[in-house]
Amino acid sequence: MKTNEIYDTIVLGLGPAGISAAIYLKRFNHSVLAIGLDGGSLKGLHHIDNYYGSFHLSGDDILNNGYAQAKALGIELKFEEVVDIEVDSIVHVKTNLGNYEAKTLFLALGLGRKKPNIGRLKDYEGKGVSYCATCDGFLYRNRPIALLGEGKLMEEEYDVLSHISDKVYVLTNGKKVDFKVKVNENEIDHLEGEEYLERIVFKNGESLHVDALFIANGLLDTFKSAKKIGLAVNESDELIVDENGKTNVPFIFAGGDMISGVKQIAKAVDDGMKAAYAIHKLLSSKS
Amino acid sequence: MKTNEIYDTIVLGLGPAGISAAIYLKRFNHSVLAIGLDGGSLKGLHHIDNYYGSFHLSGDDILNNGYAQAKALGIELKFEEVVDIEVDSIVHVKTNLGNYEAKTLFLALGLGRKKPNIGRLKDYEGKGVSYCATCDGFLYRNRPIALLGEGKLMEEEYDVLSHISDKVYVLTNGKKVDFKVKVNENEIDHLEGEEYLERIVFKNGESLHVDALFIANGLLDTFKSAKKIGLAVNESDELIVDENGKTNVPFIFAGGDMISGVKQIAKAVDDGMKAAYAIHKLLSSKS
Repeated sequence: MKTNEIYDTIVLGLGPAGISAAIYLKRFNHSVLAIGLDGGSLKGLHHIDNYYGSFHLSGDDILNNGYAQAKALGIELKFEEVVDIEVDSIVHVKTNLGNYEAKTLFLALGLGRKKPNIGRLKDYEGKGVSYCATCDGFLYRNRPIALLGEGKLMEEEYDVLSHISDKVYVLTNGKKVDFKVKVNENEIDHLEGEEYLERIVFKNGESLHVDALFIANGLLDTFKSAKKIGLAVNESDELIVDENGKTNVPFIFAGGDMISGVKQIAKAVDDGMKAAYAIHKLLSSKS
Repeated sequence: MKTNEIYDTIVLGLGPAGISAAIYLKRFNHSVLAIGLDGGSLKGLHHIDNYYGSFHLSGDDILNNGYAQAKALGIELKFEEVVDIEVDSIVHVKTNLGNYEAKTLFLALGLGRKKPNIGRLKDYEGKGVSYCATCDGFLYRNRPIALLGEGKLMEEEYDVLSHISDKVYVLTNGKKVDFKVKVNENEIDHLEGEEYLERIVFKNGESLHVDALFIANGLLDTFKSAKKIGLAVNESDELIVDENGKTNVPFIFAGGDMISGVKQIAKAVDDGMKAAYAIHKLLSSKS
């Protein structure tokens, strides 16, 4: 491997947490390289109304604003896919296109949602199908709503939705789930509706009229390479960090949806900022 | 006093923390009234570059976006001055124009900066004079910078500025201050400069060429009425809260610049969101 510039920090992830960290680090006068794929969980979302300052913006608008903001400050962005991370006295990041090195690393690669195998699901994403009750529940006040999921995430989403509508149907898509309200365990075949979601059709031929389907399945394991370098995770597969985003591996910090807490932009942006302050402190003490 | 509507939550303060809390509470389907004066520490700031999503926006743009965002969600805003708060089984807020009542209160009235008595200071605010090194220090990389202040705030600002420029002059404006670098204890008379700040002129006739003057004095006591209702404060006059923004007084939460932590929009917005989740939980358990 030829000798590269060793950056003060490599940020992995170009969403709210990553870009927020990069902005602060650059402002603190550190050299920063930010790497990630375009997108993440904001991609394709129609309206983001609950992030302060985001008035009438889509998820794509917010992502693009973030890229523009970072570039305007002179932050180097690379739209590449991370394929490996190695740590010795410094951090080595390998992408599909290159190798990069840094003294510190900020991990904010977000999470992948596990999507159930339901016919025409994709057709209604943003048109009745949502992956976030806090974000979109508001749109369906007192309307019939279905919630499909399991585990702690499903319980949290139910808590939000049950305050918005008294017609919340809990679906399990064939799984046996023990929950505080009656659940519908029928397997789902496909979704229907003119333009927006109108009906959930089950494999037994029955159907359910709803205006929205909230999906709260478990989270994909996006942490394979993170785990490989010895990062500790909790039982929900979130990276364990201290109050400044510091992981158990020296020089590695993390934030956003990879760590615990609500999956909200406001929290991710704050995570990035907090970690940047801590990384700045660490870099200052090393130099 | 005639009977008013009792809101689920009154939010005091229309800045990032207050509006963020109001947005989330409204989304959680609670009745919210937000009260405050137009402005706060964002008012009149030329560029806010370090808040994710705020690309080429001024402080006023961000505040106005926040008002529009809140109104679009149906949140009631009142531009009134809070003159008194009383707490019994509910919270009573008195403004210059009316009386309001709520089950819970979110306090985010920001802080007032103590401004030193320096001639023409106001003429150069946003044109060389700044109250936030993290926000504006970046603009003066390797330029001569003066820092006026005392206490912990000054030390923190020095730490930021000394990484940006090796020409940072610490001024005390007549006070005896013991600091790790040599300080200039001369009293300041006034500021000079064509359009932007160029010179600090001392009372002894000497002058200092700088491109920027950062002011890091102690904070005004904006907490008189807060203290009156028994809210605990720390030695820096910040309200003491738990990790969800809950104060020591039942049903009262706080966030933003009134509590500890960096005085940054990202942190204030997250404070507001976190408190809204906690208030939602509290209101749900009461009903």
